[in-house]
Amino acid sequence: MKKNNYKNLKISEKYIINKLLIKLNFNKKETFNFKNDGAFLKIPKNKQIVVTNDTINESVDFFTTDSADSVANKIICYNLSDISSMGAEPYAYTLSLSLPINIKISWLKKFIKKLYFLQKKHNFFLLGGDLSHSDKIIISSNFFGFVKKGKIIKRTGSNVNDDIWVTGNLGESSIGLAIRKNKIQMNYKDKIYFIKKFLYPQPCMIGKKIFNIATSAIDISDGFYGDLENLVNENKFGAIIQSNTIPFSNKIKKLIDNKHINFDYLLSSGDDYELIFTAHPSKTSIINKISKINNVKITKVGRIIENKGLFMDGKILKKIKKSFQHFL
Amino acid sequence: MKKNNYKNLKISEKYIINKLLIKLNFNKKETFNFKNDGAFLKIPKNKQIVVTNDTINESVDFFTTDSADSVANKIICYNLSDISSMGAEPYAYTLSLSLPINIKISWLKKFIKKLYFLQKKHNFFLLGGDLSHSDKIIISSNFFGFVKKGKIIKRTGSNVNDDIWVTGNLGESSIGLAIRKNKIQMNYKDKIYFIKKFLYPQPCMIGKKIFNIATSAIDISDGFYGDLENLVNENKFGAIIQSNTIPFSNKIKKLIDNKHINFDYLLSSGDDYELIFTAHPSKTSIINKISKINNVKITKVGRIIENKGLFMDGKILKKIKKSFQHFL
Repeated sequence: MKKNNYKNLKISEKYIINKLLIKLNFNKKETFNFKNDGAFLKIPKNKQIVVTNDTINESVDFFTTDSADSVANKIICYNLSDISSMGAEPYAYTLSLSLPINIKISWLKKFIKKLYFLQKKHNFFLLGGDLSHSDKIIISSNFFGFVKKGKIIKRTGSNVNDDIWVTGNLGESSIGLAIRKNKIQMNYKDKIYFIKKFLYPQPCMIGKKIFNIATSAIDISDGFYGDLENLVNENKFGAIIQSNTIPFSNKIKKLIDNKHINFDYLLSSGDDYELIFTAHPSKTSIINKISKINNVKITKVGRIIENKGLFMDGKILKKIKKSFQHFL
Repeated sequence: MKKNNYKNLKISEKYIINKLLIKLNFNKKETFNFKNDGAFLKIPKNKQIVVTNDTINESVDFFTTDSADSVANKIICYNLSDISSMGAEPYAYTLSLSLPINIKISWLKKFIKKLYFLQKKHNFFLLGGDLSHSDKIIISSNFFGFVKKGKIIKRTGSNVNDDIWVTGNLGESSIGLAIRKNKIQMNYKDKIYFIKKFLYPQPCMIGKKIFNIATSAIDISDGFYGDLENLVNENKFGAIIQSNTIPFSNKIKKLIDNKHINFDYLLSSGDDYELIFTAHPSKTSIINKISKINNVKITKVGRIIENKGLFMDGKILKKIKKSFQHFL
């Protein structure tokens, strides 16, 4: 904060911090009430701390016209999803806000209200951060999560013949994006449904329940194909998927049946923020139990194989979106 | 990383991570070799972890024409300075890089070379981060440091009659900025000297040596007056300063003597990245010893008083730059 001369901003830095952001620290000692040069972390015995980092940029990760609460939802969802994929539960986060000088107070209030709501829902608080100004809105966040010592779910833990599981339903957000880009038409009610899925993605927080069971995990942020490929590539294995097991909502099933949407599009794009994880076949009944207790859909969709590459219904998949290289 | 579709970038994300950034992780286990959704922190027994956050933006915190190694120097210096002011030693950091799509590979190489140099110098490594694209360069970083348990130097620890100490020489960087803005003229050699001070600020890393001695500390990023005010305000105290004790280099003394520069300008602007700290008067000799052993200039410049406000040579200071509100 102190490094960025914020005097050009129409709303004062003091107001943003002391009146708006302050409520997000939940009065936690670790934050020094946002008055210090830094914060500290309190780590429970037998826990390990994990760190994630995500940045979202106006015009790249969200549209300029998107609502402030959608922007808040995205930066939190992206990070929580990473925390969950490591088998951790959220603890705290930092927020670096680069804002245009003409940012509206109503925008900030809506943004912070959503952060507050999500913090209460998932039980984490704002450690501190940095305010600066820029031409477009740029929001960067580091998240901290706890996981039992030595129990981080890694990319590299899967074994040949492990089952591949996926949480929730896939493709919902990608339809929302297609609607926003006028690439698909449908009735008003369904439009609203899918756009909401795109604007307000929900992370699947089941990670902390499966850290003892999953041999590897990844969250789906680049589409199912790409992230599954990322996961198996780490071990130089392959994966075989049964297409009829991929979990879709009834709304999407209808779109596929009516040929309104391409099956591969649903699996190669979209920010699903569901988890793909692998587990030994002996864990099937416990996973089904976890699914039931936590009211989270978890579906077995395939298994790890020795042959490199992704296969579906016995055939090698052609249309695989190029995967991204990870950094964190 | 994986959240930001970086396909428009002229240099591939894969290349940036796997060929350029990878060397910055120093092969540390905590980074999962940049292949995971996150990283983890390893905290030595009896240590506590502190977190800082700083963001620097092109056209705000640095000029578009500034060299890449100056930009690298700034983001690291700003954060290390915060780490030091809390009495901590650096451990690791995350880096969120928002880059224009036409960023040059030579820029990135120079930027990363400087990061590598500073990591080696101050003994810390890159945990991971996030790549995205934006119109201008925006760099956000979270730093992690270790401090002995319960020994974080806080803003609020000072007492009336504590001595006020400052490290290094003040005002050097502010002259560099004035030169860059064509607000001051001088000979070529001195110009180069001060511009270098502005472009390549050096954090004062003495924090980890004084955590047991300092009752409060702050780093100077908004000028001496503003940050001293921030420090004493936290305790609702005041400070009295002797103007003839303020540490300046001979070059600056000459500028003051020749009335080329205003004394108050030197103390109310500029990114000094020196530390102001307070200590009980009984600590004078040990502080002088620490200064000598570590070859760091540390000067007693005043003391904490009960009267609110900043006083110099008995008179209340008028020209105090409005201080900034902290966030972290």
